[in-house]
Amino acid sequence: MKPEKINIAIAGFGNIGSYFYKILEKNKINIFNKTGKVPFVKYISARNINKKRLIKIPKSKWVKNPLNIPSMDNVDIVFELIGGSEGVAKKLVFSALKNKIHVITANKALMAKYGDQLAYLAEKNKVNLEYEASVAGGVPIIRSIKDGLIANKINKIYGILNGTTNFILSSMDISKKKFSEVLDKAKKLGFAENNPISDLNGNDSAAKLRILSSIAFNKTISKNKILTEGIQNINLTDILHAKKLGYKIKLLSISEIKNKKLIERVHPCLISKHSHLANIDGVLNAVVIDGLPIGRSILQGEGAGPGPTSSALISDLCSVLKGNIQYPFGVSYLLRKKIAKFDVSKHLCSSYLRIEVKDLPGVLSSVTKTFANNKISIKNLIQNPYKKNKKASIIIITHENLEQNYNNLLLSLSKNKFVLKKPTFIRIEKV
Amino acid sequence: MKPEKINIAIAGFGNIGSYFYKILEKNKINIFNKTGKVPFVKYISARNINKKRLIKIPKSKWVKNPLNIPSMDNVDIVFELIGGSEGVAKKLVFSALKNKIHVITANKALMAKYGDQLAYLAEKNKVNLEYEASVAGGVPIIRSIKDGLIANKINKIYGILNGTTNFILSSMDISKKKFSEVLDKAKKLGFAENNPISDLNGNDSAAKLRILSSIAFNKTISKNKILTEGIQNINLTDILHAKKLGYKIKLLSISEIKNKKLIERVHPCLISKHSHLANIDGVLNAVVIDGLPIGRSILQGEGAGPGPTSSALISDLCSVLKGNIQYPFGVSYLLRKKIAKFDVSKHLCSSYLRIEVKDLPGVLSSVTKTFANNKISIKNLIQNPYKKNKKASIIIITHENLEQNYNNLLLSLSKNKFVLKKPTFIRIEKV
Repeated sequence: MKPEKINIAIAGFGNIGSYFYKILEKNKINIFNKTGKVPFVKYISARNINKKRLIKIPKSKWVKNPLNIPSMDNVDIVFELIGGSEGVAKKLVFSALKNKIHVITANKALMAKYGDQLAYLAEKNKVNLEYEASVAGGVPIIRSIKDGLIANKINKIYGILNGTTNFILSSMDISKKKFSEVLDKAKKLGFAENNPISDLNGNDSAAKLRILSSIAFNKTISKNKILTEGIQNINLTDILHAKKLGYKIKLLSISEIKNKKLIERVHPCLISKHSHLANIDGVLNAVVIDGLPIGRSILQGEGAGPGPTSSALISDLCSVLKGNIQYPFGVSYLLRKKIAKFDVSKHLCSSYLRIEVKDLPGVLSSVTKTFANNKISIKNLIQNPYKKNKKASIIIITHENLEQNYNNLLLSLSKNKFVLKKPTFIRIEKV
Repeated sequence: MKPEKINIAIAGFGNIGSYFYKILEKNKINIFNKTGKVPFVKYISARNINKKRLIKIPKSKWVKNPLNIPSMDNVDIVFELIGGSEGVAKKLVFSALKNKIHVITANKALMAKYGDQLAYLAEKNKVNLEYEASVAGGVPIIRSIKDGLIANKINKIYGILNGTTNFILSSMDISKKKFSEVLDKAKKLGFAENNPISDLNGNDSAAKLRILSSIAFNKTISKNKILTEGIQNINLTDILHAKKLGYKIKLLSISEIKNKKLIERVHPCLISKHSHLANIDGVLNAVVIDGLPIGRSILQGEGAGPGPTSSALISDLCSVLKGNIQYPFGVSYLLRKKIAKFDVSKHLCSSYLRIEVKDLPGVLSSVTKTFANNKISIKNLIQNPYKKNKKASIIIITHENLEQNYNNLLLSLSKNKFVLKKPTFIRIEKV
């Protein structure tokens, strides 16, 4: 009996696409052994077909316009590796699903924005929409929530979802170098893009978090504004102070159900240096799942890059080849209800503040009075005068308080005549 | 349309079985939502049907002899929660598979011994044989290797596979209490069985390791004698010395391919205290997978107990309900070749030795001469005289050497007139 051949189109043939193609060709026999089917790359599209490449692609495979793929003959699966939540990527995925073609994508921005609509289409047309590679490529997190942890009621899912920022923070910690220096190094090593803004400002993490919370809580993707803060304002001095106080600074993505409402946050956190996440360094990703009856599960591995992403793409491919038409988000769209948003101003945490002030008599009493006025109680205070320039830096650890009170405090502090610039405010997270 | 009902029989209704039943009943709607099928527990068998239980089971469900289950009407899935590699468990699983009934088991001893034969039967009869709960219940490790990491060439898989011994070692480390005291505490907390011998001597870990290496390397289960050493001879003093030298002691299970041959080992290891595994404490399990192209993935969570085990059982159940007839070991039995055994006497590592000696002149020179005679070079030596009783303890860290030379060294030392008892020998593992 001749083994069944499955025709594949790869749209997007950059770093990821071409590496994936190589790994796929290498794994053909392996994939046949495990699924009984043979994947065959029939079409490839790239922005620049004439680019010099290390791999030779027969001319017959090239497709100029990826948007033509869904209407071409005998395409079983489209790999969307173009990226971006709009434009070609969006059009291609919608049109492929409409044409009853399975889609496998690594596109977190697209899934975070149009995931619900796409899942509806896929379900209606009985095809697969797989996106393991969109979150933490080297960590089989989506499949684990949907299959391995299927029986669990998950209360909280959180972790380190962005390798670039984690590399920067842990390198600053280890090498004691400044943000800008470390960022340059990250770019040289290929761990940061030339324009890394969506990594640095937390937007990349927020998109991934939307996807994870949707699967973990069986809800539609939240349209809420996620509390999102990046790491651009973290100074080396914050990392060193945190260390002295027993903490490390990590950019965490946190999603949890509080009083039956959803709270999603992406921001730098001070976490105990003995905690598990504090020891996830470099470009690693890690996801913690608190569920019942399983307790706490942690999955970690490389988050991005051609290798881990290709591994996730092939895992999706095998799932499709095995013939499992799965609900893209684990359950039917009919059962994915909306969830109310927890009012983030009611979020409770203690915090770290660094306040740069003029070193004059009366400063400390004025600053601490501002805290008292905002009903925020101080647990720990360190004052570091810089002898040279009559300035000082005040480090404060607070007791637990409400997000809204911190907002008011920061406003009051910015009006305080001794305060030189916007204070650095970092939430302390129990992990 | 009436949803399809799937009939289940649960064989073995102790701690695990009854908890699983509870979780299953609680999750019925959830399971229906995710699989489109309704699981219905039709039969239950227990050693003692008349035992007082917190859950009420209708009389009609009880089956006296579990071995009758496979021939009863309309049983779709058997859960084997009896345990043990022989006797009733073995007979039940073989006969269920022969009768084309899906089997889900938590039985590592059975799978490690008869997994190949059982998988052959399951494949021939086109039914599922699922066993996620047999290794590290709270860690979806088997599904992750078979699905999430399907594209990877795994070179090495290792980790902490036994919660009891990990609890004992980490409690000794933290509380500075003796082995026997900590073991008693573990029993009281339910973390050690009344007869914990197969946990302590490494046999439990070895059975799990056989299963993991078989899936990771696509090979039949090795019949080789696994180098297996337990933790019974680890003293508090070893843990404290290791700590001073920058190590922690963990019972690791390690499987790797060296020169295309398989080496499987279960033994206590000194590992860097900064390593990831060194910080897995208590009853947690953790598995590290080194693969290409994914790099290193780590999965961790609770290893045993009713909650994590039930989570794994339900994940297996959902996989069966989704209708995926999977190869039990990821590929067909036709493709699972035997693998040659790496000669463990050629294994290379550095090591820690504690040698109890008479505190007399000439001891040190005699002991170090024994090392030199066996071509083992010393990296680090600490001598602790006990002033009271004219005894001393010599701690030695060696440079890398062959397993066979260590064996000879230990033999020579036991013949040395100054040496009071069999030295403690612990391998140092780079993790």
